[in-house]
Amino acid sequence: MKSRSTRALLCGRINCMVEIIKTTGERELFEREKFCESLHKAGAPSDVTEEICALLEKEVTPGMSTTQIFRKASKYLMRRNLPAGIRYNVKRGLELLGPAGFLFEQFVETLMRAEGYENTARDQMIRGECVEHEIDVVAEKGGERHIVEVKYHNQSAIKTPVEVVMYADARREDIARAEAKQGKNVKHHLLLVTNTKFSKNALAYARCRAIALIGWQYPRERCLEDIIREHVLYPTTVLPSVDRGAREAFARHDMMLVRDLAPYSVEDVVRKFGIDERRARGIIKEAHVLVYGTQHVD
Amino acid sequence: MKSRSTRALLCGRINCMVEIIKTTGERELFEREKFCESLHKAGAPSDVTEEICALLEKEVTPGMSTTQIFRKASKYLMRRNLPAGIRYNVKRGLELLGPAGFLFEQFVETLMRAEGYENTARDQMIRGECVEHEIDVVAEKGGERHIVEVKYHNQSAIKTPVEVVMYADARREDIARAEAKQGKNVKHHLLLVTNTKFSKNALAYARCRAIALIGWQYPRERCLEDIIREHVLYPTTVLPSVDRGAREAFARHDMMLVRDLAPYSVEDVVRKFGIDERRARGIIKEAHVLVYGTQHVD
Repeated sequence: MKSRSTRALLCGRINCMVEIIKTTGERELFEREKFCESLHKAGAPSDVTEEICALLEKEVTPGMSTTQIFRKASKYLMRRNLPAGIRYNVKRGLELLGPAGFLFEQFVETLMRAEGYENTARDQMIRGECVEHEIDVVAEKGGERHIVEVKYHNQSAIKTPVEVVMYADARREDIARAEAKQGKNVKHHLLLVTNTKFSKNALAYARCRAIALIGWQYPRERCLEDIIREHVLYPTTVLPSVDRGAREAFARHDMMLVRDLAPYSVEDVVRKFGIDERRARGIIKEAHVLVYGTQHVD
Repeated sequence: MKSRSTRALLCGRINCMVEIIKTTGERELFEREKFCESLHKAGAPSDVTEEICALLEKEVTPGMSTTQIFRKASKYLMRRNLPAGIRYNVKRGLELLGPAGFLFEQFVETLMRAEGYENTARDQMIRGECVEHEIDVVAEKGGERHIVEVKYHNQSAIKTPVEVVMYADARREDIARAEAKQGKNVKHHLLLVTNTKFSKNALAYARCRAIALIGWQYPRERCLEDIIREHVLYPTTVLPSVDRGAREAFARHDMMLVRDLAPYSVEDVVRKFGIDERRARGIIKEAHVLVYGTQHVD
């Protein structure tokens, strides 16, 4: 780690003192090292990291947003190192599935189907002993019933707190009491899926009460991003060429997955979604890299 | 209800088109009728309402904040009709017990002691089966243990949702399971106290699970404001002369209740809290009205 003053000397005439704009609207100086580290953390090899850092350093101009910088970087990274590019993008792609979270719910339902859950249904009203509950997703597996609580956060930096897990537990108990009263003995498994990590207490409580959790980097043996990768179920929001306009066009047409988009031709994308040709070409190229492992566009 | 144009004609040269500033910083036109209605809702008789409306109409100047207008109005109302003045003030006074809510917790503990709860303690860590819980207030009554969840909102317009009640229930259950494991059979009563109303589902769930609720206008037979009135346990924030500076001075000296402030002389208030004499006189006068039912200041 070099000191600020050494760095200023080293970077000389290149963009070391460029002010960029964060998503919050705040301004900050573009920090080469911080930026390089984010690429490295996504698993980019040192030579690729250095190459992209050098490229970006030249391209960053004053007033550029961190989102623009992220897009440029992830575009380069996707081309140079697919797995690192994907890791760099998935977290943000999930955050963009908002804003109200209902798209994330739909996404979770899709993941569950891929995982072998059957008869999935969203937003089901289930009567408890005390009140009626709107369950985000209900599903069956191996003849057993699962109720799924989906928690979406547009800031993945937060950790889902224990309150959320306990509230879900209280719901399950309320439903169980209602069914016991009716003489039914249906055990409900409870699953909580979020795009964030979990607080320490949330993990402890869930473990203790047999509540399954799936979230960012959790559980280690098979976390949210593992499931996504395994089934190639990337949301279109992970593609660096998908800007706000494209995102909204895809949402309007219920086009949520890169997998469903990949068979489209560039012309199809232009016609169906009203996206300009240059961007459509970028999108399809990235979709092919992700789904077919190739960069060639027909 | 008169139409806007009729009203504009009626109010003629007086402050009908005066722009005032809401607590959010937004500007709006001062509306005489809306303002009169708020006094009427607090239970001010028609003649008092009309009198204060006429007075305020003359005193409202452009750029005046809704808080300033509220203070002026409540000062007049306290003098003309004590019960209405108190009702007009208590809700806002409780909102001002924030910002972090810990003062409201302290206030709730005081109320509970007045209600005959014993051995009260705040922020107690209690081990559950799964995790440790920080309980806002624990107390005993008739040899039985009570755990109290305190929910403070600085916007009393919201209704405490069912999630809060269910989370508290899950906590009680977790603690109960831990104690059952140890062979103890201590039943914990659960009480939830808030400065807001409750959602319909929150009420249903609490009733069903024997969770006691105390909040704004709830329960009807003995709600938060009834308990406050009965024990004369008004927080100093209900006094219209207590401005931000006085509020902070009182908080620094742990002076939370009008009852504890009332025996002070004006000079004491000036000396101890650094409040200027004119304001101190107003404060003590209002405190006497509230605690001793008299307007005379020694």
